[in-house]
Amino acid sequence: MCQLLGMNCNTPTDILFSFEGFHRRGGLTDHHADGWGIAFFEGKGCRIFLDDKPSVESAVAHLVRNYPIKSQNVIAHIRKATQGEVNLANTHPFMREMWGQYWIFAHNGDLKTFQPEAGCHFNPVGSTDSERAFCYLLEQLRSKWCSAPQLDELFAEIDRLAAEIRQHGVFNFMLSNGEVLFAHCATHLHYIIRQAPFNKAHLVDDDVTVDFSTVTTPHDRVAVVATQPLTDNESWTQLQPGQLLLFRDGAPLLVSSGSH
Amino acid sequence: MCQLLGMNCNTPTDILFSFEGFHRRGGLTDHHADGWGIAFFEGKGCRIFLDDKPSVESAVAHLVRNYPIKSQNVIAHIRKATQGEVNLANTHPFMREMWGQYWIFAHNGDLKTFQPEAGCHFNPVGSTDSERAFCYLLEQLRSKWCSAPQLDELFAEIDRLAAEIRQHGVFNFMLSNGEVLFAHCATHLHYIIRQAPFNKAHLVDDDVTVDFSTVTTPHDRVAVVATQPLTDNESWTQLQPGQLLLFRDGAPLLVSSGSH
Repeated sequence: MCQLLGMNCNTPTDILFSFEGFHRRGGLTDHHADGWGIAFFEGKGCRIFLDDKPSVESAVAHLVRNYPIKSQNVIAHIRKATQGEVNLANTHPFMREMWGQYWIFAHNGDLKTFQPEAGCHFNPVGSTDSERAFCYLLEQLRSKWCSAPQLDELFAEIDRLAAEIRQHGVFNFMLSNGEVLFAHCATHLHYIIRQAPFNKAHLVDDDVTVDFSTVTTPHDRVAVVATQPLTDNESWTQLQPGQLLLFRDGAPLLVSSGSH
Repeated sequence: MCQLLGMNCNTPTDILFSFEGFHRRGGLTDHHADGWGIAFFEGKGCRIFLDDKPSVESAVAHLVRNYPIKSQNVIAHIRKATQGEVNLANTHPFMREMWGQYWIFAHNGDLKTFQPEAGCHFNPVGSTDSERAFCYLLEQLRSKWCSAPQLDELFAEIDRLAAEIRQHGVFNFMLSNGEVLFAHCATHLHYIIRQAPFNKAHLVDDDVTVDFSTVTTPHDRVAVVATQPLTDNESWTQLQPGQLLLFRDGAPLLVSSGSH
């Protein structure tokens, strides 16, 4: 199964600690050897690093681990190919522009029977079920609104579309426009909010500990969302199947009730 | 003035030699300190490295210089900001998806008076004249064709749109969908075709020589397009103002007559 990682913060924050544990799931501690990618928003702009090599071997992973890019919204993905061959066009996260904003999407799961019609605005470049679902999701949103709607309306519509798409299989996903992070759970997704008073955290995948109190200010708040908890001494919250969360400024702002 | 660099080849080729000279124009041998970017197509997929720091200082430039990504189509840009502040959203190249293909665009020039209406399909995220022109160009193409047209029709329409947009200022640009490379000259653009028998080439910006005969096969053909010639011992062809060229498999396939 693929691994998802998302971060949403109230101040630009580096993801080095979480990425340190996460990237090890690309071939060392777990079997995800079909590529990986990470997208960092910086203001309205977005920087994406994609690699169709296993992440433990990658020169790009080395750069990301050593280059402390600070971002308020990050989405990362390690791929275990289920549909579509292993190549760059099939590597998550995917990006499109809608409403003058970049939208970033990564998916964990398998949508075997999902074959929507070609879109008017958005079409897949690669051959994955994931990119098909992303394009379908944006196509429906763009057809409904010519410019960005209110957040609560957008949340309700994405919740409805996620319920529709997950009829076709497993649909855990993360989606961000650089302001907010949507996290949808079909099977496995966990999150944690880190805020003052900050404590030490210890990675599951590596014997690394960080004391966040030494690298934060009292006003910082960071939400980290991942397929499986990345630390073994903190209390992660498990999302319910069918649940959609919207994070803004490092905390859940809107939460749906789950399967319906 | 910004600097453009493009490469179109008949076999995946690394751009390390040309980039070595080109990136030095990002602060050492020329004054272009407002960021840079490079996009590499690999099949249908595209990998973009963007940096809003001067390219001679950048960790990302270091990666690109030492990581021999092989590609059939590359577009790179060093920015000298004329419109729009220096930030990631304003850093070239820009990317959009159209007709199930990624399209990459970079611009050199200044389109002071170009303020097209908001598009139905494509809208700028940042605040540059360049991204406005890119979105306008794609908007017109997408409005005319719902799926990719024949290359000669596409070429004629881009030639027409380039003539329209350059009424608003200086509009040197490069555009690629991963299969072909369009190069449009308003003021300065030069190209060279390298093919057997391959010779030595020596960079203008650095005392570096490469003997291409040692790193190529007899069937390789590579077109390199740049604002100014990158080597001082080869014969570069200067494009005419108003001229559009379409490169495929390392050679010009379609050439317009220039200003009209």
